[in-house]
Amino acid sequence: MGNKENKSTEKKKTSLAMKPENENNFRKVGVPLIKVVDSMEKLRKLDMLELPWLADDIRHEIIKVISKNGGHLGPSLGVVDLTIALHYVFNTPDDKLIWDVGHQCYAHKILTGRYKEFRTIRKEGGLSGFTKRSESEFDPFGAGHSSTSISAGLGMATARDIKGEKRNVIAVIGDGSMSAGMAFEAMNNAGDMNSKLIVILNDNDMSISPPVGALSKYLEDITAYFSKVITSKPFMSFRKTAFNLAEKLPEPIAKFARRTETHAKGLMTGGTWFEELGFYYVGPIDGHSFDDMIPVFQNVRDSDEHRAFLIHVKTKKGYGYKPAEQLPTKFHGVSKFNIETGEFSPSLSLIPSCTQGFSLVINKLAKEDKDVAAITAAMPSGTGLDAFALDFPKQFFDVGIAEQHAVTFAAGLAAGGVKPFVCLYSSFFQRAYDQVLHDVVLQGLPVRFMLDRAGFVGEDGITHHGLYDISLTMNLHGVVVMVPSSYAEVLNMVRTAYSIDDRPSFVRYPRGCLPYMEETAGDFGEVLEIGKARVLKEAADGKKDVAIISLGSRLNDALQAAEMMSEKGVGVTVVDARFAKPFDKELFLELASSYSVVITVEEGAAGGFGSAVSDFLAKEGILDGGKVKFRALAINDDFYNHAPIPQQLKYAGLDAGGIYESVMLLLGKSSSSKVRSVS
Amino acid sequence: MGNKENKSTEKKKTSLAMKPENENNFRKVGVPLIKVVDSMEKLRKLDMLELPWLADDIRHEIIKVISKNGGHLGPSLGVVDLTIALHYVFNTPDDKLIWDVGHQCYAHKILTGRYKEFRTIRKEGGLSGFTKRSESEFDPFGAGHSSTSISAGLGMATARDIKGEKRNVIAVIGDGSMSAGMAFEAMNNAGDMNSKLIVILNDNDMSISPPVGALSKYLEDITAYFSKVITSKPFMSFRKTAFNLAEKLPEPIAKFARRTETHAKGLMTGGTWFEELGFYYVGPIDGHSFDDMIPVFQNVRDSDEHRAFLIHVKTKKGYGYKPAEQLPTKFHGVSKFNIETGEFSPSLSLIPSCTQGFSLVINKLAKEDKDVAAITAAMPSGTGLDAFALDFPKQFFDVGIAEQHAVTFAAGLAAGGVKPFVCLYSSFFQRAYDQVLHDVVLQGLPVRFMLDRAGFVGEDGITHHGLYDISLTMNLHGVVVMVPSSYAEVLNMVRTAYSIDDRPSFVRYPRGCLPYMEETAGDFGEVLEIGKARVLKEAADGKKDVAIISLGSRLNDALQAAEMMSEKGVGVTVVDARFAKPFDKELFLELASSYSVVITVEEGAAGGFGSAVSDFLAKEGILDGGKVKFRALAINDDFYNHAPIPQQLKYAGLDAGGIYESVMLLLGKSSSSKVRSVS
Repeated sequence: MGNKENKSTEKKKTSLAMKPENENNFRKVGVPLIKVVDSMEKLRKLDMLELPWLADDIRHEIIKVISKNGGHLGPSLGVVDLTIALHYVFNTPDDKLIWDVGHQCYAHKILTGRYKEFRTIRKEGGLSGFTKRSESEFDPFGAGHSSTSISAGLGMATARDIKGEKRNVIAVIGDGSMSAGMAFEAMNNAGDMNSKLIVILNDNDMSISPPVGALSKYLEDITAYFSKVITSKPFMSFRKTAFNLAEKLPEPIAKFARRTETHAKGLMTGGTWFEELGFYYVGPIDGHSFDDMIPVFQNVRDSDEHRAFLIHVKTKKGYGYKPAEQLPTKFHGVSKFNIETGEFSPSLSLIPSCTQGFSLVINKLAKEDKDVAAITAAMPSGTGLDAFALDFPKQFFDVGIAEQHAVTFAAGLAAGGVKPFVCLYSSFFQRAYDQVLHDVVLQGLPVRFMLDRAGFVGEDGITHHGLYDISLTMNLHGVVVMVPSSYAEVLNMVRTAYSIDDRPSFVRYPRGCLPYMEETAGDFGEVLEIGKARVLKEAADGKKDVAIISLGSRLNDALQAAEMMSEKGVGVTVVDARFAKPFDKELFLELASSYSVVITVEEGAAGGFGSAVSDFLAKEGILDGGKVKFRALAINDDFYNHAPIPQQLKYAGLDAGGIYESVMLLLGKSSSSKVRSVS
Repeated sequence: MGNKENKSTEKKKTSLAMKPENENNFRKVGVPLIKVVDSMEKLRKLDMLELPWLADDIRHEIIKVISKNGGHLGPSLGVVDLTIALHYVFNTPDDKLIWDVGHQCYAHKILTGRYKEFRTIRKEGGLSGFTKRSESEFDPFGAGHSSTSISAGLGMATARDIKGEKRNVIAVIGDGSMSAGMAFEAMNNAGDMNSKLIVILNDNDMSISPPVGALSKYLEDITAYFSKVITSKPFMSFRKTAFNLAEKLPEPIAKFARRTETHAKGLMTGGTWFEELGFYYVGPIDGHSFDDMIPVFQNVRDSDEHRAFLIHVKTKKGYGYKPAEQLPTKFHGVSKFNIETGEFSPSLSLIPSCTQGFSLVINKLAKEDKDVAAITAAMPSGTGLDAFALDFPKQFFDVGIAEQHAVTFAAGLAAGGVKPFVCLYSSFFQRAYDQVLHDVVLQGLPVRFMLDRAGFVGEDGITHHGLYDISLTMNLHGVVVMVPSSYAEVLNMVRTAYSIDDRPSFVRYPRGCLPYMEETAGDFGEVLEIGKARVLKEAADGKKDVAIISLGSRLNDALQAAEMMSEKGVGVTVVDARFAKPFDKELFLELASSYSVVITVEEGAAGGFGSAVSDFLAKEGILDGGKVKFRALAINDDFYNHAPIPQQLKYAGLDAGGIYESVMLLLGKSSSSKVRSVS
């Protein structure tokens, strides 16, 4: 695939240069197409030969902006041509175009009236890095998590049929996203409905990392097959016509293909697997050739068949920017980089990240214990398992974008006597809540969950925050939930999770690093006593005004807030809770019995740690006497759009200033407004 | 399929009768085999001809016990022969046999040392109705929810490989369970691993209801095909040999099958879809013929290939009991019934169930508004959608066991202007938490969730309770959560959910009926004011001792408890919260400001409604003065095994007696022990 496009692009540029203004006359010599094509009407008036030119403009814009703002570079560059072809052929926004995950939508945003704002992407108040319904009528369905597009598309197609409307619904989904169960659930349903739905399989051999699983091998197989036979004339003509293939089968094949047309067509065109799920399969076609894409899209657009179509399009991730083409994993999601060299701006942090801490410990553990296994769901790099995968390939399992299976697979490993670590982002962990409860917790199996990106995630915004894991795990019976407050504590807690071999355990840590600095214990952490908190700063006797019980990431801010209070003469004790569950009942009871104000602070949704502590103290009767004011500071019931993490913490009132304000208010020493209440 | 077994069973019984004691001599004339085959050793010493005899004994025992205890009759009867064949061939418990869902495990329990306890199944203190690790070493993995077995099996197979052990791992999964995404995720992973795993596809054309989806049609296709060609000699020999088929292909086919062996084999044996996922497919074979099953199982057992096998076995649900064969949906899960007639004991309840209330309203709504759509995930009957499915087939969607897709499909419908109701059991709703959050809530789409079986479920036990839906939905921003306290309120709330067209809404109600009785409003309920509670009993002025804020199902018990308190001279107000979110802040604030004791009561896990009320009151400063004692009564952090629902409520302290005790303790008027505290 893809061996023609460079040459033809060259040719087309030349022909365009010779024809600077066409009959529609909205172009100007010397003005880039990206600036003049500011509506769908103008896009659709372009000559097909001009499209590569527009694609180049868009690619340059994406590279320029993302080199400054950071973002999902590779996925977006890979689908610039596909995006143009789709909007060129389909009648968006009346036709509904749904981007799975939504992180490949940059060209789509530029083409759909958001070119001028594109430079604000992922900045606070600017465009979201994902599709978003509230942002544009061209975004019929928002995303952020993968594999939802076929379900959403089928819903819209069905709504269209119920309402007797006419329009096409197109879902674009990557091959990596196809590994998720919900994509299969949707295909299984779509293939059985009489509703016209167009699924574009954007096959770039990649999700966040190289794809895994049998389906992905299958896609490779059919692509490899057609790369070879594609030059043979009969096959070419077969594939070009794209429809009603079975009728045209040569007799020797048709004879043995009476069972279903499917098999015969499968032999000639690939895609049997999809055909057997009830889809009409077309492909694979070259996602960087407008000549290949546009006629196929037009055919499918105009088809009257009430059924599901799957168009298999091959694209190259990072297409058009050499560094991204060569290192697709590295350039999947990027921070600032130098366009010329492809080098990233160096991190300014002195402290290694939580992910690095986990990585260090699990590698050391695996060196000593061959029963240690690590499981991830297409996030080996992000969760710090790259080195582990290389050093311990037989104990490493990337199951694809398949969190549900990841968890129950790990439960099976644990039942078989292996020591599994399941490494997921907190936000994606939500996909496996039932499996955690049903397969791990109810059976008390010692699966260790490492929840990365817990808390606010910053620029990725609303869909990617890890706000719910604490409240989700707090009411699971018999589990241990640990939340580190420093890099050293990450090491301790991973080590402790390893040592817990009789029940499930969780460690949740934020994106990046924890600012509280302390020396690491031992060679790679030490085993903590389960359920014991630690006191990091203690108020003088007779000055027991405030006790701050900080959980995890908020410790540094809690200590800063405490300093500010001390300066005002307030006696403050700061506790690092360490364990959300089981928490340190004895200590918390003592604090609530002796301080005027006790607060918990956590970077998670309300209904979590603080609520459980509140419930406990209430049941112990400590809160009845009117001697202590108790408050649980958590993330209020609200949406938190993309912005830098410190900003999000500030809005949630969980930075040092916010903690300080909340406490001073309780002490009657602040004039600022009340802390926002829940719901 | 299945056209031989009756005849051959007859024949075998005769031959057994002629040979009452074989060389192993543990049988006695006149003693049923089920009584003497009390170990795997004895089972495996049986002559193959004796197995149908044993199967008959087991079927009779199952019918006898389940007609008294209730349970999953159809699924268990369908796999009696399969269960015997598996234990006969495989070396359980060292070989690991995993039953998906676990509700078809009755023969398995009887055969694996639990025959004598079988009469206690689903009774408090007796055997669980599902597989359970803590119950037997023959249950390597517990279940209750569907589609987990392949993941768990792959985990165990992988653990075996890591540890260098030797054993077979067998997962038995129904065709209905195959529609769930996590089964696909597991197959996609298993087909790509070099680990020996045996998957038995128990294809009975059924999950809880007739199966849906393209995959199920595909299975029908291949079965139908082979039912026809099965008599032809060449095909028979192909299928019997079962292995290395591709090499033996006739030349005309092989010639056109160079691409993959898969296609050629698919033409001859079916199962291409599985082969393309990397499985070695064998089947379909007759799951009621030992002659068919045993040689295939032996072949697969002895294979040295490190790969995944899929054996497609056809069974008949309810096999051996005519009423269950004829009405498989009705006899899937049963209450007490008359063995002779197949008639169920009539319900003694005077009040219609919550499910019936929902059913009534949605049918009336759909009659008026063709935009009303109902979606379920293989639970049409259980969620009350049977009538809707018949009357409004174009607005009814059973997507199979696919909760994730169900939710996002509904989100797509809502985005397309349709008014979807998603009808799930609370426990299975857990499977779709991320989709609810990501696809519905973050986009504010008006999807209505009807959560049935919320709260304790009784005899189905630990895996089926719906305890978490309140805490899961409480911290979703911008949603409405309604909890009815009576049948009339079910009508009101379904009607209210219909009227909420600008955001997501939830109605959660228990299994069976709500005992609080009141007249229904209007023709089919009335629209409630969002966020407003109602006062049902009010303490006299000057006697404001206790305010009970009851959420949903606990109202009747709260009122009973209040009566008991009144008798002791305590002034009690009882409030029906109606809305968990947004709750009635104004009223609750007033109660907390004027009563000595305020409690919330809910049939859900801690961290839900009561926690949010507590948090709110704390932030308002009401709890600081020492004037009011506040407690949130919810289900404590514990496991609640199978038992009658009233018993479970009693253990959780949420029945009238428990509520009374908790309050009297707070008033200092009880000598009983303290209310149990959380975690």
